[in-house]
Amino acid sequence: MDLPVLTPGQFDLIYNGFSLAIAAMGAGFLYFILSRGQVAPAYRTALTVSALVVAIAFYHYLRIFESWAAAYVLEGGAYVSTGKPFNDAYRYVDWLLTVPLLLVEAVLVLRLKQGAGGMIARLSIAAILMIVTGYPGEVSSDTATRLIWGTISTIPFLYILYVLWVELGKSLATQPAKVRVLVRNLRLLLLASWGVYPIAYLAPVLGFDGAGAVVALQTGYTLADVIAKPLFGAMIVWIAIEKSRADGWSPNAAAVPASTSKA
Amino acid sequence: MDLPVLTPGQFDLIYNGFSLAIAAMGAGFLYFILSRGQVAPAYRTALTVSALVVAIAFYHYLRIFESWAAAYVLEGGAYVSTGKPFNDAYRYVDWLLTVPLLLVEAVLVLRLKQGAGGMIARLSIAAILMIVTGYPGEVSSDTATRLIWGTISTIPFLYILYVLWVELGKSLATQPAKVRVLVRNLRLLLLASWGVYPIAYLAPVLGFDGAGAVVALQTGYTLADVIAKPLFGAMIVWIAIEKSRADGWSPNAAAVPASTSKA
Repeated sequence: MDLPVLTPGQFDLIYNGFSLAIAAMGAGFLYFILSRGQVAPAYRTALTVSALVVAIAFYHYLRIFESWAAAYVLEGGAYVSTGKPFNDAYRYVDWLLTVPLLLVEAVLVLRLKQGAGGMIARLSIAAILMIVTGYPGEVSSDTATRLIWGTISTIPFLYILYVLWVELGKSLATQPAKVRVLVRNLRLLLLASWGVYPIAYLAPVLGFDGAGAVVALQTGYTLADVIAKPLFGAMIVWIAIEKSRADGWSPNAAAVPASTSKA
Repeated sequence: MDLPVLTPGQFDLIYNGFSLAIAAMGAGFLYFILSRGQVAPAYRTALTVSALVVAIAFYHYLRIFESWAAAYVLEGGAYVSTGKPFNDAYRYVDWLLTVPLLLVEAVLVLRLKQGAGGMIARLSIAAILMIVTGYPGEVSSDTATRLIWGTISTIPFLYILYVLWVELGKSLATQPAKVRVLVRNLRLLLLASWGVYPIAYLAPVLGFDGAGAVVALQTGYTLADVIAKPLFGAMIVWIAIEKSRADGWSPNAAAVPASTSKA
């Protein structure tokens, strides 16, 4: 993508958004690691996968932040390109690794037993197709190219959303009451975060000018990533805690050897 | 190896491949460390060795990434050599340490009791021979030299693959049903990843031009490393989880000392 001249306000908004994402991913990582003892062993892999997702995103936001800082220089009160390209691909490499893991996370915490492996495989393939077909449009400065690849990418996108929505919905019936509310919110959070990606992607063709498009695109993706990764992962933790409780597991019992009870 | 002029697309593909490998190795490390509680103590050393492999590779890919970024500069729309050499040796040092460990990993998780020590020793010696004899061909720009050393290196390569294939095959009969499927997939993954190395090695003599050869070689090695290390390690974890279960071990029971049951 070409790098338009930005006002300090525009440059800083994107820059500070990247920094916020680094902090949010790092904090998410610590939360998921430190919460392991609060959930039954059966749910720990879901927390592990949540931790992997934000760790991978933490790494990529560090790189994105550095790439952004190197791509612009303040000259005469405005930010202009240094000639160094901003590497858009970090986001796509990140999604290539994290989107399949996010799907695994959701499937694991709900313990969808029947056909979970097959569903993860189908969703992962769709995720890879979605990301790989989105990329050529992302890096093109041609509107038609962006629209064509964007449209192709939307097909696996809608497939994933549909399957997750229906499967999460189906699982609602079998969950304890407290968990049901959380799963319902998880579903809404999924829709809210995933809904932002296509809007951000379309910013450059939605009538924004060069600078406005870059701001809408970068802050949109960053916002969506913060919702879809650390916030989504936190909901996975809360679901896992409630489900552990519903299964009759308690963090106290695990910490205190039973031999201490009136033997 | 000489550094040919690359298009931005070619340079970026290699660059982003290295970055993906850093993220994949780091995520693999966290996964192997965090999964220890999910497997019986007998399988934890296999997970430890998997973690060592990706930790070593994580370090080397950081170095490779830096070396690559320093070797090229964008000039007039194309990437040209800065005069700084790209250090191919990082890969060979990495393999020298990680390939014997990968073999240990596979042997440990299958708990091949009879002659495991001798087999690891023989495979490790073959691995070192394979890597040491491959290197002179790798750094030579002479086709004949590359082919001669490549051929010599293929002898221990085929020996290792043969031994692993046969031994993994033999162990199939003694594994529980669920484990059998995983071991079969592990064997295929081994063949898929190891099969890519010689193809990448031969890229410069397979009629690719300078730039094409560098792209095929670097992305080929990176892809093979991502399959052979974090993905292979993940399959080791899944095998260890299934075998722990088959041995009657449960992560729940592990939290409660056995002495505690109604004494």
